[in-house]
Amino acid sequence: MTKGILAILSAPSGVGKTTIIQRVMADDPNCAFAVSHTTRTPRKGEVEGRDYYFVDDQAFQHLVAADAFAEWAHVHGHRYGTSMAEIERLAGAGHDVIFEVDFQGGRALMRRFPEAVTVFIVPPSLGEVHRRLVGRGTDDDATIARRMHQARIEIATAGEYRYLVVNDDLDRAVTDVQAILRAERLRSIRFPERIRGLVAEPT
Amino acid sequence: MTKGILAILSAPSGVGKTTIIQRVMADDPNCAFAVSHTTRTPRKGEVEGRDYYFVDDQAFQHLVAADAFAEWAHVHGHRYGTSMAEIERLAGAGHDVIFEVDFQGGRALMRRFPEAVTVFIVPPSLGEVHRRLVGRGTDDDATIARRMHQARIEIATAGEYRYLVVNDDLDRAVTDVQAILRAERLRSIRFPERIRGLVAEPT
Repeated sequence: MTKGILAILSAPSGVGKTTIIQRVMADDPNCAFAVSHTTRTPRKGEVEGRDYYFVDDQAFQHLVAADAFAEWAHVHGHRYGTSMAEIERLAGAGHDVIFEVDFQGGRALMRRFPEAVTVFIVPPSLGEVHRRLVGRGTDDDATIARRMHQARIEIATAGEYRYLVVNDDLDRAVTDVQAILRAERLRSIRFPERIRGLVAEPT
Repeated sequence: MTKGILAILSAPSGVGKTTIIQRVMADDPNCAFAVSHTTRTPRKGEVEGRDYYFVDDQAFQHLVAADAFAEWAHVHGHRYGTSMAEIERLAGAGHDVIFEVDFQGGRALMRRFPEAVTVFIVPPSLGEVHRRLVGRGTDDDATIARRMHQARIEIATAGEYRYLVVNDDLDRAVTDVQAILRAERLRSIRFPERIRGLVAEPT
C-alpha cells in the first residue's frame, strides 16, 4: 500500500476553510480529517469526535505534559492541538490525512512533517473576511476586531505554504484543493518501486 | 499578468504522450504547445508548424551553430530541438508552455529552466508499449526492438521528473496531467504581490 499524504490547510478565521475541507472530504473517501482537541466549548451543531475532541484545560494540560500532541497552540484564548495518536490512527488505516490548523499549528506540523503538502487559503479581500465574521453572528465586536488583526498577521505567513488558494468562489476553491491533492499523489518520489518494476520487466 | 508555467512532459515512444497532450491542450485555451524542429520526414497527417517544424540536416545544423535551441537531441537517427524563439513567442503571449520531449531533451530543459514542472508518463507495462508500437504499424521490427530498449532506459530516468503519470486509462491520465498543471499554477511562490496586497489592505 502506498503511504497516504499529509496535507496541512490553514486560513484565517472567516475565510471558509472548514466549508472547503468538508466539501473536499465528502468527494474523496480516501481523505480523513484529523480531529483536533480543543478547550473551547462546542458551537451549535458541533459533534464530539467529529468536529473536535472537546476537553477541559486540565485534561489538555495532561496531554501537553505527556507530549501527546503533534502541534498545539493558543488561539483566541483557547487551546487547540492535534494528537500523534489521531494521526497514527488515520495514517495506519492508509488514509490521506488533512489537517485544518491555524498558522501556528501549521508551522509546528511543517517542522514535524517536512514532506507534508501545505495549502494556505486566502480571502479575496480583508473586507470580505469582515463581512463573513459579522454575518456568522457568533462573535462580538472586540472578538471580530481581534480576528481581523490576526487575519492580517496570518496572511503575511502565506508564503511559507507551498500552495495558495483564493476563496472568491467556493466551487473553484474546492476544485483547486482537489487538484492539489491529486497532483501531490502523483509525485514521482512516491513510486520508486513502480519505476524499478517497469525497468526490470522481462521482455 | 502572472507569468505562465513551463511544463516538460516526457515518455518513451508508444506510451501515448502525444494523445494525452492533445487532449489537455484542447481543454485548456491558456496552454500552448512548444512546436519542435525535426529532421525526420512528416508522418501521415502531420502539419508543418503545428506538429513540428520540418527542416533538413543543414538547416538544423545552422540553428545549432547559432545556439538557437533550448534543447536538441538525436532520437532514433533524427534530430529534434525546441528553439528559444518558440518558447519566447509563447511565453511572451502569456501562455503556459508545454514541452513534449524525450528524456535527453527533458534533461537539457530542466537545466535551462529549473523551475519547470516536469511530468514523466509511463505505460502500465513494457508489454503494453510493445503492443502499441506494433499496432501503430509505422515501424519495422528492428526499429521496434530499438524503441523497446530505449523505453527501458528512459523509464529508469523517471525519478528525475517531479510527477509520474501512468497511462493505463487515457481519461485518467489526461485528468492527472490537468490536475498537475492546475496545482502548479497555485504555487504560492507565484503570488507574492497578491499576499502583500492583502496584508497591506486598508481596514
